[in-house]
Amino acid sequence: MRIDIMTLFPDSLDAMLNVSILGRAQQRGYIAIQSHQIRQYTTNKQMQVDDYPYGGGRGAIMQADPLYRCWSHIVETYGPGRTIFLSPCGRTFTQSVARELKERYDHLILVCGHYEGVDQRFLDACVDEEISMGDFVLTGGEIPAMAVTDAVCRMVPGVLPDAECFEEESHWNGLLEYPQYSRPAEWHGRQVPEILLSGDHGKVAAWRKKESYKRTMERRPDLFARFDESQLTTKAEKKILAEAKAEFAAEHPACGDAESAGT
Amino acid sequence: MRIDIMTLFPDSLDAMLNVSILGRAQQRGYIAIQSHQIRQYTTNKQMQVDDYPYGGGRGAIMQADPLYRCWSHIVETYGPGRTIFLSPCGRTFTQSVARELKERYDHLILVCGHYEGVDQRFLDACVDEEISMGDFVLTGGEIPAMAVTDAVCRMVPGVLPDAECFEEESHWNGLLEYPQYSRPAEWHGRQVPEILLSGDHGKVAAWRKKESYKRTMERRPDLFARFDESQLTTKAEKKILAEAKAEFAAEHPACGDAESAGT
Repeated sequence: MRIDIMTLFPDSLDAMLNVSILGRAQQRGYIAIQSHQIRQYTTNKQMQVDDYPYGGGRGAIMQADPLYRCWSHIVETYGPGRTIFLSPCGRTFTQSVARELKERYDHLILVCGHYEGVDQRFLDACVDEEISMGDFVLTGGEIPAMAVTDAVCRMVPGVLPDAECFEEESHWNGLLEYPQYSRPAEWHGRQVPEILLSGDHGKVAAWRKKESYKRTMERRPDLFARFDESQLTTKAEKKILAEAKAEFAAEHPACGDAESAGT
Repeated sequence: MRIDIMTLFPDSLDAMLNVSILGRAQQRGYIAIQSHQIRQYTTNKQMQVDDYPYGGGRGAIMQADPLYRCWSHIVETYGPGRTIFLSPCGRTFTQSVARELKERYDHLILVCGHYEGVDQRFLDACVDEEISMGDFVLTGGEIPAMAVTDAVCRMVPGVLPDAECFEEESHWNGLLEYPQYSRPAEWHGRQVPEILLSGDHGKVAAWRKKESYKRTMERRPDLFARFDESQLTTKAEKKILAEAKAEFAAEHPACGDAESAGT
C-alpha cells in the first residue's frame, strides 16, 4: 500500500505517521507514506495557495491550480491512485470503508483542505470520492487523513506485529472490547476480576466474550442490533450470549436504551 | 479552555497542535494545550508503561499506575478537569458533543491509549467518560485526541480569525457546505458558475443556500431528515428550499436515497 498525502502541513503529518506501528512498517517496507507540500507547486513568488471566494464571503479558498500541479506530480511519479478529499461533505468513514480501501486499491492519494474550502473544479477534475471523519468541524483535512492512513495501513499484512492481533480488535467483529487488566493484581484497593487469575483459559474466554456483549448492549445498542447471532453455531457460544442478555436485563431493570444510545 | 493530553507520543501531538489556527490561538493566550509524556511517570528504570494482560492474550496493556501518576500530576498542577479516554467503546464524537464540552468545561484531560488497551481500574478510578471518533480501529488515541482538541478549541471565542466564520460552517446548522470557487474564472476549460460573478449578493446567497440543501439531500439524507424546516420564517427562505427540492427531484427521478446514504 502506498499513500500520498497532499497538505500544507507535511511536517505535522510526518511527526505522527513516522512513529510507532506505522513508522516501523514503513522502515520495513510494508507500506509507503509520503506527505507533499502543496505550496511547492505554486507558480507565484509568495507561494500563495489561496484566494478570495467568487461570490464573496469570508475566508479564503484553496485554488485549483497548485492542488492540480501537486496531484499531477504524484500521479506522474508514482502512478494513478484512488484520490480522496477529506471533507465533512463525504461519506462517513467506518471500518468497512477502511477495509474497502485496503482491498480495492494499492495506492491512495489523500487531499487535505484548509481555509474555507477548496475550488470545486479541482474536486470535479481529480477527486474520486470524499470521505468524512464524522459530523464535526475541523480546521483541515490533516487529522482525518491520518485516521484513514492509520486504519487502512493497520490491515496491510506485516504492519501489525502479529497478524492475528487485528482480528480480535473492536469493530472488526462489530462488538466492543472487554475490559483489560495488567499487573499488579491489587491497585489502590481495586482487584483484578478473580476469573482472570484462575488460569482457566476456557472460563477466561467465556467471561471476556460475555463482557464484550454486555458492554456493547449497554453502550452501543445500535451496534448490538446489527450483530448477527446466527454466526454462533455451538451450544456453548449461544449460552454465553444468553447469559450476557440475562445479566444485562438484571442490571438494567425496566429501562430503555435511550441513555446509552450515545451522541 | 485548557486541554492536557496524556500520551506516549507528545512530540507527534505538538507537531500538529502547535501550528495553524490552534498554534496562533495558543500564542495569543486564548487556549492552552499541553502534552504529557506518560512514560515520565513510571517508577522503573526502563520507563516501561505496559505489561501482559491478566487472563492471557496477545499484546500489552497500559498499566494503571503510570497513567494515574501522570493524571494526578496534571490535577495537582492545573486543577481538576473533565477526564476523557479516547476509545472505540465511547459515545460517538459529534459537533454537539464538541459544543457540550466547550460550554460545560474549561479544563479537559484527554487520555490516549496504546497497545492492546488500558487497565480498566485506571478508567474506573479517574475517567469521567469515553469518547469514540467513529466505528473504526486506530493504533492509539492520539488522532482522536487531536480531533477533539481541534473541534472544541475552534469554538472558543478569539480562536478563529473572525468569530462569525464559525457560524457559517458545515454541521453548525446541520447542512453540508455549498461548492466554493476562487480565481481564475476559467481553469482547464472549467468555468465558475455565472451567478457567482454577477455581483448580486442576494442571488449569490440564495444560490449557495440552494446548493447546500441539494448537496445535503443527495449525500446525507439522514442529516437532511433532521433539518428543522420550521426555522425558515420568510417566504423567500421557504421558496429557496422548495426550489432545491424540485431540482433535486428532477435530477433524481424515481430513485430512493439508498446509494447516497453513506457508510
